[in-house]
Amino acid sequence: MHATPGVAHILITGSELVTGRVSDVNGPFLAGRLSEMGIPVAGITVVGDDRERLTLAIGTLFRAATLVVMSGGLGPTGDDLTRPVLAAALGVPLVAGPERDGRPPYPLPQGGEPIANPKGSAPGIWFAQGGRALAALPGVPWELRAMWPEVARRAAPLFGGATRHRALLRTVGLTEREVERRVRAALERHDLAAVEVGVSAKPLAVDVHLAAASPDTLALAAAAARGALGDHVFTETDAPLAQVVGDALRRAGKRVATAESCTGGALSAAFTAIAGASDYVDRGVVSYSNAAKVEALGVPEALIATHGAVSEPVARAMAEGLLARSHADIAVAVTGIAGPTGGTGQKPVGTVVMALTAADGTFCRTFHHMGDRPRVIQRSVTRALDLVRRHLLGGVAGLERDFPPG
Amino acid sequence: MHATPGVAHILITGSELVTGRVSDVNGPFLAGRLSEMGIPVAGITVVGDDRERLTLAIGTLFRAATLVVMSGGLGPTGDDLTRPVLAAALGVPLVAGPERDGRPPYPLPQGGEPIANPKGSAPGIWFAQGGRALAALPGVPWELRAMWPEVARRAAPLFGGATRHRALLRTVGLTEREVERRVRAALERHDLAAVEVGVSAKPLAVDVHLAAASPDTLALAAAAARGALGDHVFTETDAPLAQVVGDALRRAGKRVATAESCTGGALSAAFTAIAGASDYVDRGVVSYSNAAKVEALGVPEALIATHGAVSEPVARAMAEGLLARSHADIAVAVTGIAGPTGGTGQKPVGTVVMALTAADGTFCRTFHHMGDRPRVIQRSVTRALDLVRRHLLGGVAGLERDFPPG
Repeated sequence: MHATPGVAHILITGSELVTGRVSDVNGPFLAGRLSEMGIPVAGITVVGDDRERLTLAIGTLFRAATLVVMSGGLGPTGDDLTRPVLAAALGVPLVAGPERDGRPPYPLPQGGEPIANPKGSAPGIWFAQGGRALAALPGVPWELRAMWPEVARRAAPLFGGATRHRALLRTVGLTEREVERRVRAALERHDLAAVEVGVSAKPLAVDVHLAAASPDTLALAAAAARGALGDHVFTETDAPLAQVVGDALRRAGKRVATAESCTGGALSAAFTAIAGASDYVDRGVVSYSNAAKVEALGVPEALIATHGAVSEPVARAMAEGLLARSHADIAVAVTGIAGPTGGTGQKPVGTVVMALTAADGTFCRTFHHMGDRPRVIQRSVTRALDLVRRHLLGGVAGLERDFPPG
Repeated sequence: MHATPGVAHILITGSELVTGRVSDVNGPFLAGRLSEMGIPVAGITVVGDDRERLTLAIGTLFRAATLVVMSGGLGPTGDDLTRPVLAAALGVPLVAGPERDGRPPYPLPQGGEPIANPKGSAPGIWFAQGGRALAALPGVPWELRAMWPEVARRAAPLFGGATRHRALLRTVGLTEREVERRVRAALERHDLAAVEVGVSAKPLAVDVHLAAASPDTLALAAAAARGALGDHVFTETDAPLAQVVGDALRRAGKRVATAESCTGGALSAAFTAIAGASDYVDRGVVSYSNAAKVEALGVPEALIATHGAVSEPVARAMAEGLLARSHADIAVAVTGIAGPTGGTGQKPVGTVVMALTAADGTFCRTFHHMGDRPRVIQRSVTRALDLVRRHLLGGVAGLERDFPPG
């Protein structure tokens, strides 16, 4: 760790995190908020609840960064070490914090101030010294999130004005490599190669981050990237795909229903994870067994016997059967082989058939998704959400154009 | 970072990880595997694709730990720096790696060996020197996972025998604080206070990690913890709750169906995320609208009008209606208020009613879950899985005993 003024470092503590039992969610949250403020994050360090390592990490990072944001170790369980370790690492005594009505005060490193915790009992700690500061927050994610605005308010003055202007374009349907190739080529064509480009990918959903020194350059770069990516860009905000699709359904006054086999409810869960989804989600059927496809969706048994459950005729029948049995305007069906077993030579693991049906007809296509079971499911969900999005942009004819067969 | 022989450090690279756009999954995976091998993980460090910081981090960690496992920066996109940075940090030149059929060889730090990548194109790098080693792996999670066995095989000899014996007990239905209180009290009663206890929590699912110096002490400690936690312990393996419940369904020869309102498909998705779920999942209905509850599950409209959609009579009718309309032996229904809106004085956000129906009757209970929308959904899914687990242990009468009303 070297001294880099003007950067923040995130320090996450918790033995459960270095044994791999639990994944840290606070580091990415804090990194996102700091980045939005234009504060560069030098790194995220995760250490166990080990007194010696924690003391060393706090001391080193506090000297090396303008701001250290810590998470963990302030709560009620016995392996919480943060308060005494913090005082030792900062070289100050541990003193009693402010009185709490009736209960014993939480201790604080001398010179530290409590940060109010609106969602829990243990307050955080703010410790500033010589133009640097450290914020210690609890490990419970919703407590930490509720306390963030106070930390941001206190941290901003340490960093002067941010000098980078940033834009985000979220895309769906292209690979990470293809997105990067298109954006870099477009920036070069427009003499904008100095603009910083970052690409980050979830399966089938790729974010493009642009950063430039002036708002004008950023606007030119964003326009160039937009042109290169076309309607693969689904938003320029932080909104996830399911929310963008949900908002589009609400604006169109349309309701959706889902018929799922291999995704097993994950598509419906993605729609309904968004607050307010009852405005546009009518219902879902998880027709995991063939009997369910026949009974709940009206798929003819003969169709399954002739073509197999993973086939375009069955996907069409699932979507059309559900549309007829629901109050939805759009029905989406997904049937496929998520693996790891069940694949055949003709229909390998990752073969997923999707159908979308609406007043103007039915679109059906077979996709081949790479990856293990969770990934095939996630990619199928992303693709299905994108089908609904594209349908709302251009109807079934538009889908036929966007996804030609073969 | 201080020199600690006998420990591993994990180094994750990727700019998208320090801007919070993507959460690292490789660090927890690697930490879990190393911990299972008895290799203590000193920390997980995440840094951006910044040449200077990466060089410094690699150099520092390679001197401080017996093993450094890196992820990221070996792939095809332009911001991958790992190969040249690795050579510079290790103080050796970059040389051409082994020939690849026709294509240009990947470069390697001199003295390094490629690690085969069965799931992708870019091989990893193994670099050993003076009893220490560094393994560089791609950032793509499934490639990294496929390459892990080779890294483990090479790493084991560096660490001699592990000296801690470890056990895991996974529980459901108790708070983190209550689990820890019970386990510590039991260990003290049995003069086992020297046994290391770690507790890590997901909503409603708490893992207890025990570590002791001898297998005998560990066995005594595990027995004491087991006694203190009773049938809240759902497994002593790594299996997630959905898999344990699925295995129990398969053993019992029973099939399950789900009727979901507020969880919106997440319960069904949890069941079907497990490979082989088609053995015991019959179907699911996401009855998000009231019309869907009436039409797809046969809930009487008058029941919804009288009691509201979130009520015990409606939850019972959802479960019983689905059981009658499916080939399942057990039907579970969930209806509730996930928030952030829709709460009332009588039924605040987090009110979730669950019903389970089977041949021996129907169990129904109202639960109150804390937290935001994703958390209420996740807790409801966990609780519903646990209801099925407990039903298989003791039937509906057992559920009535385990969850008395009020």
